[in-house]
Amino acid sequence: MADGGVRAPRNAKAIAFPARRRGLRDRAVLIASRVGASLLALALAAATAPALAQQDAKVFQFALENGLQVTVVPDHRAPVVTRMLLYRVGAADDPPGLSGLADFIQQAALNAGNATSSNNGARNCAFTTHDYTAFCQQIGKDRLRAVMSADADRLANLALSDRNVRDGADAVLADRRARVDGNPQALLREQMEAALFLSHPYGRPVTGWPEEVRHIGRIEAQAFYDRHYPPNNAYLVVAGDVTPDEARADAEATYGKLTAHELHPRAEFAQPPRLGETRLTVLRDDVRMPLLLRLYRVASYTEARPGEAEALQVLAQLLGGDPTSALYRELVIRRKLATETRAFYEGYARDDGEFGIFARAKPGVRPEVLQQAVDGIVSAAMQTVPRMADLERAKTQLVADAVYLHDDQISLASAYGQSLAIGLTAQDVEDWPNRIRAVSAEEVRKVAAGDVILREAVTGYLLPATQ
Amino acid sequence: MADGGVRAPRNAKAIAFPARRRGLRDRAVLIASRVGASLLALALAAATAPALAQQDAKVFQFALENGLQVTVVPDHRAPVVTRMLLYRVGAADDPPGLSGLADFIQQAALNAGNATSSNNGARNCAFTTHDYTAFCQQIGKDRLRAVMSADADRLANLALSDRNVRDGADAVLADRRARVDGNPQALLREQMEAALFLSHPYGRPVTGWPEEVRHIGRIEAQAFYDRHYPPNNAYLVVAGDVTPDEARADAEATYGKLTAHELHPRAEFAQPPRLGETRLTVLRDDVRMPLLLRLYRVASYTEARPGEAEALQVLAQLLGGDPTSALYRELVIRRKLATETRAFYEGYARDDGEFGIFARAKPGVRPEVLQQAVDGIVSAAMQTVPRMADLERAKTQLVADAVYLHDDQISLASAYGQSLAIGLTAQDVEDWPNRIRAVSAEEVRKVAAGDVILREAVTGYLLPATQ
Repeated sequence: MADGGVRAPRNAKAIAFPARRRGLRDRAVLIASRVGASLLALALAAATAPALAQQDAKVFQFALENGLQVTVVPDHRAPVVTRMLLYRVGAADDPPGLSGLADFIQQAALNAGNATSSNNGARNCAFTTHDYTAFCQQIGKDRLRAVMSADADRLANLALSDRNVRDGADAVLADRRARVDGNPQALLREQMEAALFLSHPYGRPVTGWPEEVRHIGRIEAQAFYDRHYPPNNAYLVVAGDVTPDEARADAEATYGKLTAHELHPRAEFAQPPRLGETRLTVLRDDVRMPLLLRLYRVASYTEARPGEAEALQVLAQLLGGDPTSALYRELVIRRKLATETRAFYEGYARDDGEFGIFARAKPGVRPEVLQQAVDGIVSAAMQTVPRMADLERAKTQLVADAVYLHDDQISLASAYGQSLAIGLTAQDVEDWPNRIRAVSAEEVRKVAAGDVILREAVTGYLLPATQ
Repeated sequence: MADGGVRAPRNAKAIAFPARRRGLRDRAVLIASRVGASLLALALAAATAPALAQQDAKVFQFALENGLQVTVVPDHRAPVVTRMLLYRVGAADDPPGLSGLADFIQQAALNAGNATSSNNGARNCAFTTHDYTAFCQQIGKDRLRAVMSADADRLANLALSDRNVRDGADAVLADRRARVDGNPQALLREQMEAALFLSHPYGRPVTGWPEEVRHIGRIEAQAFYDRHYPPNNAYLVVAGDVTPDEARADAEATYGKLTAHELHPRAEFAQPPRLGETRLTVLRDDVRMPLLLRLYRVASYTEARPGEAEALQVLAQLLGGDPTSALYRELVIRRKLATETRAFYEGYARDDGEFGIFARAKPGVRPEVLQQAVDGIVSAAMQTVPRMADLERAKTQLVADAVYLHDDQISLASAYGQSLAIGLTAQDVEDWPNRIRAVSAEEVRKVAAGDVILREAVTGYLLPATQ
């Protein structure tokens, strides 16, 4: 049983791009009747910033006999509970030629569960990343067992019809059209990630290539479901106004009835060597201001040596976390080359993570000029340790962002669930603020010099087609 | 039964780069005791240039009861016979996380057959592409049945031991070290193809990523073999001093004993949209002269509309087939920017093909300058039809190159086998010279303008690390 603070890291600051595999921000599907735009915004933010240790909370962990791993995060501020179920299967598991299948299953499972959760007035979420698939509901505490029971029944009996499959594929394709195809920045990032990760499946979009989504058939979808969604391939997180004993009783009475199956762990993919910097230029009629995005392939939290991922997180904050950051001060305020800047670290992945830098040019500024300016700032970070005042402010801000977010129960559950699903522990979640506070100035310089390197980068230009 | 001329197209001119998935040139393994360097060179050339119709030859096609498709190409100039067996399984079928497995199986099967073929004094070849795997032997006609019988026994009983698997993986890794890792141009092309094809498996090297090759185990290798190598997934080509009736009797008595299995056709992969030109720069200590390679993703022979692939073939010849071509005349002779130039079309693929342009800079010439010059030449080809004299010379040369190659029996067998294995017919092979002769000047301009476009291209620079 883990014991301690309850807040967790999530990704760096939100940027203008949909996340590659980060989940909530990119894949949020908030569907319940009581959910409006403000809640969506909250959930999106929750997925993208670290959360803070809450000193008075405890987490409790146990496994059911069927292998389901349960984490209970008591939070008694209001009589509501969040249930999150995460499966260790995601887009990286999509079979050859059937990209989008994990996302499709999420859509299908969600549709199958809609009636129940709407009746309960639940606030729902569902998201698929390359590494895992998650479903959550926030409900009144008195409805927890009913919701879990309905969910368990549905999971035990998910039988896809040809109609379900057609609808599911249509939903995935419509979702993609809305979020990616109509969004030049999302399209740019998709192309850049394909170039960044080479043949690793992180280079394949979670929503799949439409041509392949259309090939998904009932047989393949059902086989994928039967193979990857047993309880022993899942984590249940229950956060909220519940005691560990209540949660255990509820879980045993509901998910406890599901049958464990043989596990089929994900293939271990090579992360192919990158031998050179790559640049990608996309010209679009629907773009007005040139935009520069650079993505570096870097170590993730699961791969990094101690302190490395945290130093990358702090570096992102220093370079482009807010208007006090180096990119903003230099490019927006001093040199007036850009209208918007950002740096981010996306380190919550089973395989490699991403470090990103983004800048939108001011009218009349050539993207090459912007890029040289960005290169100069990154270069300085490689050579010089940050000033102590800047470092302390960055670390304080990262931890404080988490404080703010910690009020949202879904983000609380996500912090644990998403970390567990990629192989981290509850302890990793709880220690995160202390590990951030421990990052030294020299460690920040060291990751800038050693991790954020051009050979591991793809630089993307998104330009107006007239240029 | 097909009937007619017997020469076949192969890819465009040999260039300094190992082919991505072309087979013999890249994957040639000539191991028999009597084979020397000159024969190797011949076999390499055979894989890379089209062959010509031989008016007096006939091909005969039939299927055995177990589904093996047999093509007999009589060639009575000498008492030798070439047997080529091609399986419709290649690196595109490698399971997730086990790239290199098809290549590995080829190595293992070859090793299992070595003793027999050496005893027969055979000239052997074996190669794996993304689309298929081939084994061949050229032997005295009196040894044909014995060789086929031994081969059939081996195929029926291929049981991999842990030792075989270790040796096979070591062979694949050693092969890669020799041909790719020590060859900056091969490394550049590998990286470029990963960027060109995005997540399509053509972007994954045939030899696999070493990290994944090391994961190949006996269970997975045997399962892959059992799944993909039944006789009904194969083509047998017998070229040489044999009658169709003799070949049929031999095939029935040997391969006829193999049992058909259920087929597992290759997944239909999306060819993801490319939204922008990509540039890749690789810096290496072991490179002296800057080198420029551009690869365009274009239609293959299997995908192209009538005449399109042939026009691309002619365009490659016009741009960079020989010292009379546009690139050579302009870059080497007139402007003295390059020491070597080449253009090529690799159209023998089940999915997309490649069109390539290559130039090596003269000392002191910056690669950007070279690239601008190349762009100018390609641009001219988009806007202006070729002169009739150039067009006729290019077409004559393509067909004539094939005449020269047609003496080699292995290339003759390959021409049929490799075309059949990607879904073309014997008729397609036989008609090729006429289709080349029919290409018009306007068709060449049209493919230059419509197919060879920057959005579908990756431009690679290979530069000395000091630059």
